[in-house]
Amino acid sequence: MSVANVLQTAQDQVNQILEAYKARTINRVFLVACGGSSALMYPSKYFIDRESASISAEVFNSNEFIYRNPGTLGENSLVILCSHKGKTPETTEAAKFAKSKGALTVSLMYVETAPLADESDYIVNYSWAPPGELDPHPEIANYAILYRLTMGLLYVKEGNKKYEQLLASLPHLDGIMKSIKTNYTAPGKEFAAAYKDESVIYTMASGSNYGIAYSFAICILMEMQWINSHAIHAGEFFHGPFEILDKQMPFILLMGLDETRPMEERALKFLKEHGEKFLVLDAKELDWTGVDEEMKGYLAPLALNFILRVYAVELAAARNHPLEDRRYMFKVPY
Amino acid sequence: MSVANVLQTAQDQVNQILEAYKARTINRVFLVACGGSSALMYPSKYFIDRESASISAEVFNSNEFIYRNPGTLGENSLVILCSHKGKTPETTEAAKFAKSKGALTVSLMYVETAPLADESDYIVNYSWAPPGELDPHPEIANYAILYRLTMGLLYVKEGNKKYEQLLASLPHLDGIMKSIKTNYTAPGKEFAAAYKDESVIYTMASGSNYGIAYSFAICILMEMQWINSHAIHAGEFFHGPFEILDKQMPFILLMGLDETRPMEERALKFLKEHGEKFLVLDAKELDWTGVDEEMKGYLAPLALNFILRVYAVELAAARNHPLEDRRYMFKVPY
Repeated sequence: MSVANVLQTAQDQVNQILEAYKARTINRVFLVACGGSSALMYPSKYFIDRESASISAEVFNSNEFIYRNPGTLGENSLVILCSHKGKTPETTEAAKFAKSKGALTVSLMYVETAPLADESDYIVNYSWAPPGELDPHPEIANYAILYRLTMGLLYVKEGNKKYEQLLASLPHLDGIMKSIKTNYTAPGKEFAAAYKDESVIYTMASGSNYGIAYSFAICILMEMQWINSHAIHAGEFFHGPFEILDKQMPFILLMGLDETRPMEERALKFLKEHGEKFLVLDAKELDWTGVDEEMKGYLAPLALNFILRVYAVELAAARNHPLEDRRYMFKVPY
Repeated sequence: MSVANVLQTAQDQVNQILEAYKARTINRVFLVACGGSSALMYPSKYFIDRESASISAEVFNSNEFIYRNPGTLGENSLVILCSHKGKTPETTEAAKFAKSKGALTVSLMYVETAPLADESDYIVNYSWAPPGELDPHPEIANYAILYRLTMGLLYVKEGNKKYEQLLASLPHLDGIMKSIKTNYTAPGKEFAAAYKDESVIYTMASGSNYGIAYSFAICILMEMQWINSHAIHAGEFFHGPFEILDKQMPFILLMGLDETRPMEERALKFLKEHGEKFLVLDAKELDWTGVDEEMKGYLAPLALNFILRVYAVELAAARNHPLEDRRYMFKVPY
């Protein structure tokens, strides 16, 4: 398929879902997944939280969603789920559960057929590339599709124009990602050389960027590198976690472009005063030409995520620990 | 004051707030605080999530709340805040911000006068004792007061009878806490001897217990003991974090009595199969006589929290690292 056709196919799936939104009342959005797929829900929650006075959003781990059994889940709920291969059993169960409560279920996945698809009202297939590699279609990658679905929701239901800004801005992601690959590979090697022997590396962020810090901590560092980690919220940092900081303790601080940036700046000031071993990844360093001013805060996490993936590849190489190595995942029963 | 008078004074404050609930529409509850005060909000969110079809609840760090500026915050919102000494600047700002949006603001604190009190419509003073010491009035300690306010909300607004079960059950907490002090001090010493040299200790829980795991990780281990930590959600564990587990990696697993217990049991099974160094604290081991069957899941986190505080005192003693030692908190500008 040509690039234009690939993009149109995904947008056709999105458009069909926006039509489905119109057919019902929606006052509640549940963003339901596990691990890395859950992490990618955070920016969309941030968007809905900020932008809507009548629709509220929750992020839940799939099993937590089922066992917690939220009282507000019902016919006026939209449940968006995600599983890369559509085979995460808890997430398929969560889709079934949501449907049993009358909710509209929409699932994101990379594959075209999967158990999760069978249990969902609608699906969208996103584009994907392995860590560090350029996605041929970043504007329909997972985070971007999720924004299409959530900004699209407020567009359809409340006339929120951010969706139009999103569609105008997403085509510029390709250039941003390419420049990251070009400009951040060498710094990634330096990071890898400097941090390869660390047994703990903390990540830190706030607002729309927190999910990226969470994803890097649990999926890259803990899962793929067996390095101890924790995603610390940049505001919570000052109420306990900062006491762990000394000149040797490694931190990665993400600095985004959204309204919560003052919290990340406050953390940076403290790291500079009391730490020594920290990496700052600042979305301000990127060229955002063409991206709508109001979209920068929402799209910064996508760029920061790709920088971290470039760094992850270099870290794995420097440590001789392939990102694919697992002790348990898909290898033992759990 | 006699015990009866102390309890009545707190309940009078609560009753006044329940009256204030009646005077307005409330469809949204924001639970706003920092660090340990934020951790104590989680069980009340779990309660509202499960029990109400029309009122939804959010937990936000105070600055995240302000900068995120939720669109659903307004005249129909109840904002409950907490700061132990009522002097956390972000939380005082958050109260001011919430009031500027027309919300009803209720603040919990240990002290009677404080900046946070000045910016709140109502306050409640909770009872408190240092880590590991018996609170003379556990039924009006912070978590219990919060339940009075949130279960009281659904009682007043929706006729939910859990509030009556709560009031009938809380007097039994005193006996439970005393038996914990008696029965868990020796195991706490064993734990301390076995874990005192660890540089990382993870905590894990789900549902109403997750906040307790978070509190122990960030306030006790990171802040008061400078031990690396992270509160891992027992459902998320299997989607990344579990890869960090080997025979040497220390975990503390909390097992509560709520509907999410199957997730904690799944984590236990995995720890038994693939780990060796883990502590399990199971609320089932306690004598819940007198506590309403439907309250056990909600009150288990309070008991687990106290067990962990008893253990914290022993850990600090074994490590010769007083719980009061700080590098930065209240000592340097931040």
